[in-house]
Amino acid sequence: MTRPTPLSGFPEWLPEQRLVEQQVLDRLRRTFELYGFSPLETRAVEPLDQLLRKGETSKEIYTLHRLQAAEGDDEPSLGLHFDLTVPFARYVLENAGKLQFPFRRYQIQKVWRGERPAAGRYREFLQADIDIVDRDTLPSHYEAEIPLVIGDALRSLPIPPVKIMVNNRKLCEGFYRGLDIDEPEEILRIVDKLDKVGPDAVKAEIAGKYDEARADACLALAAIRAQDASFADEVRKLGVEHPLLDEGVAELAAVVETAREHSPGLVEATLKIARGLDYYTGTVYETELAGFEQFGSICSGGRYDNLASAGRDVFPGVGISIGVSRLLGLLFKAEALTVSRPVPTAVLVALWSEQDRPVSNRIAASLRSRGIATEVAPVPAKLGKQIRHAERRGIPFVWFPANGDNPDQVKDIRSGEQVDAEGWAPPAEDIAPTLR
Amino acid sequence: MTRPTPLSGFPEWLPEQRLVEQQVLDRLRRTFELYGFSPLETRAVEPLDQLLRKGETSKEIYTLHRLQAAEGDDEPSLGLHFDLTVPFARYVLENAGKLQFPFRRYQIQKVWRGERPAAGRYREFLQADIDIVDRDTLPSHYEAEIPLVIGDALRSLPIPPVKIMVNNRKLCEGFYRGLDIDEPEEILRIVDKLDKVGPDAVKAEIAGKYDEARADACLALAAIRAQDASFADEVRKLGVEHPLLDEGVAELAAVVETAREHSPGLVEATLKIARGLDYYTGTVYETELAGFEQFGSICSGGRYDNLASAGRDVFPGVGISIGVSRLLGLLFKAEALTVSRPVPTAVLVALWSEQDRPVSNRIAASLRSRGIATEVAPVPAKLGKQIRHAERRGIPFVWFPANGDNPDQVKDIRSGEQVDAEGWAPPAEDIAPTLR
Repeated sequence: MTRPTPLSGFPEWLPEQRLVEQQVLDRLRRTFELYGFSPLETRAVEPLDQLLRKGETSKEIYTLHRLQAAEGDDEPSLGLHFDLTVPFARYVLENAGKLQFPFRRYQIQKVWRGERPAAGRYREFLQADIDIVDRDTLPSHYEAEIPLVIGDALRSLPIPPVKIMVNNRKLCEGFYRGLDIDEPEEILRIVDKLDKVGPDAVKAEIAGKYDEARADACLALAAIRAQDASFADEVRKLGVEHPLLDEGVAELAAVVETAREHSPGLVEATLKIARGLDYYTGTVYETELAGFEQFGSICSGGRYDNLASAGRDVFPGVGISIGVSRLLGLLFKAEALTVSRPVPTAVLVALWSEQDRPVSNRIAASLRSRGIATEVAPVPAKLGKQIRHAERRGIPFVWFPANGDNPDQVKDIRSGEQVDAEGWAPPAEDIAPTLR
Repeated sequence: MTRPTPLSGFPEWLPEQRLVEQQVLDRLRRTFELYGFSPLETRAVEPLDQLLRKGETSKEIYTLHRLQAAEGDDEPSLGLHFDLTVPFARYVLENAGKLQFPFRRYQIQKVWRGERPAAGRYREFLQADIDIVDRDTLPSHYEAEIPLVIGDALRSLPIPPVKIMVNNRKLCEGFYRGLDIDEPEEILRIVDKLDKVGPDAVKAEIAGKYDEARADACLALAAIRAQDASFADEVRKLGVEHPLLDEGVAELAAVVETAREHSPGLVEATLKIARGLDYYTGTVYETELAGFEQFGSICSGGRYDNLASAGRDVFPGVGISIGVSRLLGLLFKAEALTVSRPVPTAVLVALWSEQDRPVSNRIAASLRSRGIATEVAPVPAKLGKQIRHAERRGIPFVWFPANGDNPDQVKDIRSGEQVDAEGWAPPAEDIAPTLR
């Protein structure tokens, strides 16, 4: 077999990076559970018609085929899920009778998209989603809760600060309708391109469809940003009135003020945030990582009034998704996130001879029973070689079993300090690898 | 949209069951890391020629196709991995220069097989694998370490006791060669069917190829079982001699005796264990769960001398794989594994009115900062309704914010006991859901 090469678009981490990823996921999980989100996992595949239900041709889907499928095998056409929202919607419908509503779940899984690989665009990547769904109606206070969860989750990591930018679809739609614009979705789509094409192009496009005054008003709205409810005054100054606008302003004010009490600076009302997707109906979220703004949002989502429906049952919800692989890819490339040591192991037990392996095994078992990750040396090599083995693997301590008159001793191979092993335990910061 | 129905062969757990699965995986990970195994994850797909490399036509492979692939797109043929060994072998070759050997990793991922779904046979399922690989040579003491890891991992779960049955390929091959049998693999394949077809059929088949005396000897060997090195005497009593037999006996004795010192009763030399796969070259493992023996091995593996090779580099290894989905499927069906409550949440903070939400939010934030999973009531319903909401979700405690002259209070809704909230914390056993 020749040495294989990576597959473009399918990132794989080295063991040390996977250790980082694991710890990141553990902290996300921890925060999600502190807010009462239940873990959930759905199968990787969905019937193809489900995946295509919303006309989602923009997401390149991978379809599955059994290599040995026989002529006449009547099996459903399956594809790999391209996000965690479509499978979650299907799961909620399928299991509605067994779930308690409002249902809050988190879901951390790989998704697949057959798009052309490019820098930061993967064909297989990990997402971490949270959603709260209810039956029939969902109170808007949940839209204010989501940023608190994400704030706590991302701020529990040693990464640059994040800013969650929020807007509200009702606010925009109400504003546009107040301007007698009859196709507000179209304006949203135009404003969505603001950062890419600039205000002049946006103004020209809107003015071309309506008039310059309304184009100016739309741009003035999009320019508003504030970290408190003062954005509402700015909106009112534009002199547009519509009941939907009032509703949206009130909801957005609640989101911003709830977050401001929880952690000042976390959330900013940013009225240019549009989010491309049609199905959002209230608050929308995008998230910037300080110093990495040019790479776009690392965590996005919003409120949707119809996640799923079957017959008379309608399930509105609100959710957000962290692009874990993308985030880690950025941080790894910038060497901005690493771990205190590359292996779980804290102690290597040295080995005097192969016959003494049971002695070293017993020491290892005793350390493990105290929660200290331990390996025994692979071979009874010269002591210097055993120490170098620990060094190469990144194991901080070597334990020397008693030998002749010498009692058991432990060496910190970073400092060279060697102490009596009796009653020894690694310092708290060396028990497990930690993020930094 | 009509209510969707499950896809046969693609199991999905309810949130409560996923909570169990998460905790099981956490405990497995914890044990693997205590033994110094590094976490690793590989992409879900491999080039099709890799998957078919060992002529593995017995594993039904799912191939992938981009729905929107254009005419002339020159992309490699990809398939979903059907186990974690093939991708691990490829990963080791691809990254050999960046890994430290002996390299020990664990890998917990879904695998896919397009086989006909049947009871306990899934098309998508979770495996938890550990392997130790080295470059060029791998000392046999690692074959004795694997059962200790698995023993600790599975015994950390509140499930029936497990017994790891071990045999050694060298022992069998040496024995057969000592009998002047020139195709020992064939005898292995016949003996592998012992439990299915019975000793008479096995005897007849071997006798048909060789003679009755040798068939009897092979059956006598397969009948040997012991939880200590005494199996070696039984083997010697059969009067067969071969250097490879001696080597296998010594290795197996080390495995059994190492395990006996670690946890008596965990490992049994069981000389009928053959394992179907060709690539094992030393110790082989199968694992029985007490009371579930008829469902077959829940955890299997062995030593292989050539996991992967490229040019002059050869990577021998030893590994074992826990069939997590299968194991949980069995335990869930038998109602033999559950969790103390169905949600992570320990406390529901009641809500006097929507205007009071910030008060309840502050209480929730303070509890979370102390590591106590907390939700705020969805709506300011009547108190009885809020308590019933907690009850329905399985949340054990309801916190009533101060109201008029009444200070903050906490009610254990299982016992009905209500106490002053000042300084209150849930009892240790109620902090998080626990397996039982």
